[in-house]
Amino acid sequence: MDPGAGMHALVRRLYPLCRSITGDGVRATLDIIGEHLPLTVHEVPTGTEVLDWTVPQEWNIRDAYVADATGRRVVDFRESSLHVVGYSVPVHTTMPLADLRAHLHTLPGQPSLVPYRTSYYAPTWGFCLAQDTLDELPDGDYEVWIDSTLADGHLTYAEHVVPGQVTDEVIVSCHVCHPALANDNMAGVAVAVQLALGLENPYYTYRFIFAPGTIGAITWLARNAERVGKVRHGLVLACAGDRGSLTYKQSRRGDAEIDRVLAHVLRDRPHEIRPFSPYGYDERQFCSPGYNLGVGCLTRTPYAEYPEYHTSGDDPDLVAPEAMADTLEVIRAAVAVLERNRTYLNLFPYGEPQLGRRGLYDSLGGRSDAKQAQLAMLWVLSYSDGEHSLLDIAERAGLPFDSVAAAASALRAAGLVKE
Amino acid sequence: MDPGAGMHALVRRLYPLCRSITGDGVRATLDIIGEHLPLTVHEVPTGTEVLDWTVPQEWNIRDAYVADATGRRVVDFRESSLHVVGYSVPVHTTMPLADLRAHLHTLPGQPSLVPYRTSYYAPTWGFCLAQDTLDELPDGDYEVWIDSTLADGHLTYAEHVVPGQVTDEVIVSCHVCHPALANDNMAGVAVAVQLALGLENPYYTYRFIFAPGTIGAITWLARNAERVGKVRHGLVLACAGDRGSLTYKQSRRGDAEIDRVLAHVLRDRPHEIRPFSPYGYDERQFCSPGYNLGVGCLTRTPYAEYPEYHTSGDDPDLVAPEAMADTLEVIRAAVAVLERNRTYLNLFPYGEPQLGRRGLYDSLGGRSDAKQAQLAMLWVLSYSDGEHSLLDIAERAGLPFDSVAAAASALRAAGLVKE
Amino acid sequence: MDPGAGMHALVRRLYPLCRSITGDGVRATLDIIGEHLPLTVHEVPTGTEVLDWTVPQEWNIRDAYVADATGRRVVDFRESSLHVVGYSVPVHTTMPLADLRAHLHTLPGQPSLVPYRTSYYAPTWGFCLAQDTLDELPDGDYEVWIDSTLADGHLTYAEHVVPGQVTDEVIVSCHVCHPALANDNMAGVAVAVQLALGLENPYYTYRFIFAPGTIGAITWLARNAERVGKVRHGLVLACAGDRGSLTYKQSRRGDAEIDRVLAHVLRDRPHEIRPFSPYGYDERQFCSPGYNLGVGCLTRTPYAEYPEYHTSGDDPDLVAPEAMADTLEVIRAAVAVLERNRTYLNLFPYGEPQLGRRGLYDSLGGRSDAKQAQLAMLWVLSYSDGEHSLLDIAERAGLPFDSVAAAASALRAAGLVKE
Repeated sequence: MDPGAGMHALVRRLYPLCRSITGDGVRATLDIIGEHLPLTVHEVPTGTEVLDWTVPQEWNIRDAYVADATGRRVVDFRESSLHVVGYSVPVHTTMPLADLRAHLHTLPGQPSLVPYRTSYYAPTWGFCLAQDTLDELPDGDYEVWIDSTLADGHLTYAEHVVPGQVTDEVIVSCHVCHPALANDNMAGVAVAVQLALGLENPYYTYRFIFAPGTIGAITWLARNAERVGKVRHGLVLACAGDRGSLTYKQSRRGDAEIDRVLAHVLRDRPHEIRPFSPYGYDERQFCSPGYNLGVGCLTRTPYAEYPEYHTSGDDPDLVAPEAMADTLEVIRAAVAVLERNRTYLNLFPYGEPQLGRRGLYDSLGGRSDAKQAQLAMLWVLSYSDGEHSLLDIAERAGLPFDSVAAAASALRAAGLVKE
Repeated sequence: MDPGAGMHALVRRLYPLCRSITGDGVRATLDIIGEHLPLTVHEVPTGTEVLDWTVPQEWNIRDAYVADATGRRVVDFRESSLHVVGYSVPVHTTMPLADLRAHLHTLPGQPSLVPYRTSYYAPTWGFCLAQDTLDELPDGDYEVWIDSTLADGHLTYAEHVVPGQVTDEVIVSCHVCHPALANDNMAGVAVAVQLALGLENPYYTYRFIFAPGTIGAITWLARNAERVGKVRHGLVLACAGDRGSLTYKQSRRGDAEIDRVLAHVLRDRPHEIRPFSPYGYDERQFCSPGYNLGVGCLTRTPYAEYPEYHTSGDDPDLVAPEAMADTLEVIRAAVAVLERNRTYLNLFPYGEPQLGRRGLYDSLGGRSDAKQAQLAMLWVLSYSDGEHSLLDIAERAGLPFDSVAAAASALRAAGLVKE
Repeated sequence: MDPGAGMHALVRRLYPLCRSITGDGVRATLDIIGEHLPLTVHEVPTGTEVLDWTVPQEWNIRDAYVADATGRRVVDFRESSLHVVGYSVPVHTTMPLADLRAHLHTLPGQPSLVPYRTSYYAPTWGFCLAQDTLDELPDGDYEVWIDSTLADGHLTYAEHVVPGQVTDEVIVSCHVCHPALANDNMAGVAVAVQLALGLENPYYTYRFIFAPGTIGAITWLARNAERVGKVRHGLVLACAGDRGSLTYKQSRRGDAEIDRVLAHVLRDRPHEIRPFSPYGYDERQFCSPGYNLGVGCLTRTPYAEYPEYHTSGDDPDLVAPEAMADTLEVIRAAVAVLERNRTYLNLFPYGEPQLGRRGLYDSLGGRSDAKQAQLAMLWVLSYSDGEHSLLDIAERAGLPFDSVAAAASALRAAGLVKE
């Protein structure tokens, strides 16, 4: 199975689960991810202080519906977990439609779609449904039933670590708190899983974090105060599968290495690069001024900018296998640059060293290849003054990073540069 | 009376006085300003050394004319103070037109206008008149009479101070040495007066300086060597009332706070921003390299760029009440930014603080307002790292300064940021 | 004779000599240059270690040909020194055309031109000829004769020094290793000679270096380790006479004074400015990271970008007297800026000094000239704060350097600024 198809199958399987910021939907999601990757699952008790926040009560739901006088479920949680407002308190009552309307959420401008709504920190209950459905409901009494519990329990998140040659880390973070939405963010999860599976003996240590948005990232940061200092680079992955082109949102630093690497690998395909803003996904937390990590956010169409965003239209059909494969390819290219981006020092900085007697002329294959390889060597020699990384040199020279990295390897093997 | 009309009335009243760099015309001008604002008037004796200059003799004039053989005044100081070259030495003689021509100044290209001429430091005398008038003068003898005195006396300037919460100062400077010219600079004076009247318990101390150009600013600088260190920001106001759009000339620093504030408040209206150049008005002196103050110059059409500049065409009709009101509005907006532009420190820099439990979600009015307010709070939290002022943040966020300042106030009240 | 014609005559005279990186062709070239300029000629023995390189054996050639069965020379060194591959080892044999072809170099895409080829460090022999010539050769045996010697000897280069008021140096470097090519680089040599002849009591010491490419510059650097620290500015001159417009390639620093000077003097004519790259002429060596000198490269059409490059088409007809005169004019303008580009200090930095009583108003000629002169004085006073050179000020003011330099002289004479 090609990677796109495999990722799409995982999205379809994860899609229907009723995730929230806590509860069994998250656990079921992590169980399925765990079939692909070994995970360390963390359970953090309700009431734990995490930075400025407190881990909330755990929410679970078994069933919910609105039924008409005949007992027919006109809104049914079993059809889609979007139908219940996340963190709805339990309710079982009967009320006329006129009163029920205050608890019904629709999208009048997109009447066939069911919206996604939550109310984590203000206790309430509600249902989400299509405006078209609501318009067909006759007046009269309706039975309302939400079989949920909101009680002390845990917040659940998981990590997968690929150890590197160094303990400096690259983090890849995906939120896993959205219920039946595919692009946001099961597509991101699927791409992250595939990326993790492909990492073999990397230079950096790679840490994949699957956690609920905001409170999950905050919990991770609170519990990893020392590890944060090891985080060199990072990416938040979201909306990774729609058919739009890629958008990279820079870290708050704006010139972090990850920012420059993404600009480099995106250069030759349609893309957009945006400066940091303090809203979006969990880059908000990783880039808060106390941490200010070099963590950017890679999406296809950015959050809130596609019409199906946070609606039942964000289903597995919105996600394309080829789009996920494209996202994966770019991340892998970024990783390939990060892994090899070093700063070398030219050990023969006075004049050019004689490449000919070291076999570095014509020694690298065909004509045109050899010429580019020789140019790359001259660029690496000229700018390896301790102040320019290989990425700096590639950008300055207008050469592919691979060519510059290969030149550096050849020069290093010949004793002309050192790390 | 609306501010535009009031300012225009003041321009009309000040307009005809025969001002120069010294003398009773300046005193009369300051007397009228003093009816609106309490002024401290300074009299600096002739011969006083001021920086590289010396206060010159005081010039006064009572009457002047050129009369033809019948005794008719063909050029008459009583009609306009522009008719006499400023600092003309006294003269009473009769001479043929052929000889008189060397002392007559016209504008052949604008034959109906009377030019403005002075000769402060080279003793001479002369008359200014319309080319059309000159062309109609028959040959023959003319009586010439200039009843002026050039004698030891004083240079006169005035200050109005609005005390602030801090002794750091904002200076607003207007030259008051031009005779019957309206836009240049009685319009600037009128706007400055109105600005001063509207300042109530400001943060900064505001100092308004009404002084003759060049020698006046130099005298003020010479006599305020210690106070100069208190000047944080400043504006030279000139040509403040013509119908052209606004032009801001940056301080010599180019990135002084006043420069950034003016760019911010001018952003949404037609305007031009120019880099500093060492000619123009008294920003030349305030920005000389030894001081290098953050003082810019705000005009409508810049000096020498409107056809009526330094001619009898610069009369009260050239000045529009709405234009002066617009200039005032922009300066007030600039003052409003300056007054509140602080650098805060986020006291909860690790992750985002939880705004909800502090009532900072939805607590600020209508929907769209509330959303902008919340975004503004996130921006202030994200960039209040001790290195970004509120203006920096507003520019980075693309939000109005007011919104960012309000967010900072709310966050400060909630104990989330401190100054 | 006008300079263009004189330079062209020198190109024509130098053109036919069989230069290489060593040998009598270089010596003959330096002899002719020496008729115009006193030269110090250096002979560096074979085997001398120079930086990472070793001075090679000396190559000399007396005659060479390919002759057909009738004894007719079908390829003849006496016609053009391009016909023999540089550094060809001696050979005398007879072989069929089929075998000879491996030693024959042509340009199939430019069939009437003879290419230029060398093999300095891999011992071989060969001939260069037009494809058209080759196509007419019948099969059969050919006599091959190269009467060359490759033996211990010397590498030859020369210097001409014009002593300055200071020992800080400007270097002008031209490669003299190419055989019968006119634009590359006898045109550069001719321009350098003319430039040297025009220097009279300069501020800087000017050192003209006539040396073979790469190994020559490396040898000079190796033998002048201490002098290198005196080199403030430099230009490599090449391809100085074709009819294309001028191209300046910046030093590796990119913002060296020479880079800014060339941008200034090229501003008003067609030109191109390119960033540094580590290939081209001897700027590669002067700008290697250990030296990183402020040395740029001035050419007309850059190397390898004109169709006659490194072919028999690069003959004296490719070089235009007017083009060389234009190159010379630009270099002289650059020298004129370099010579006078100082950083002054305003001794009266508080307010403007009174220019009038020092006779600096109207004292500099006609009306418009006087106005520009006065503006230039104000700019020099305003920016002579120890951080801005006259070139900085000219660029900031948008004034010609000459005007700014004249203002600085007048201000210095009046005691208002000092160096």
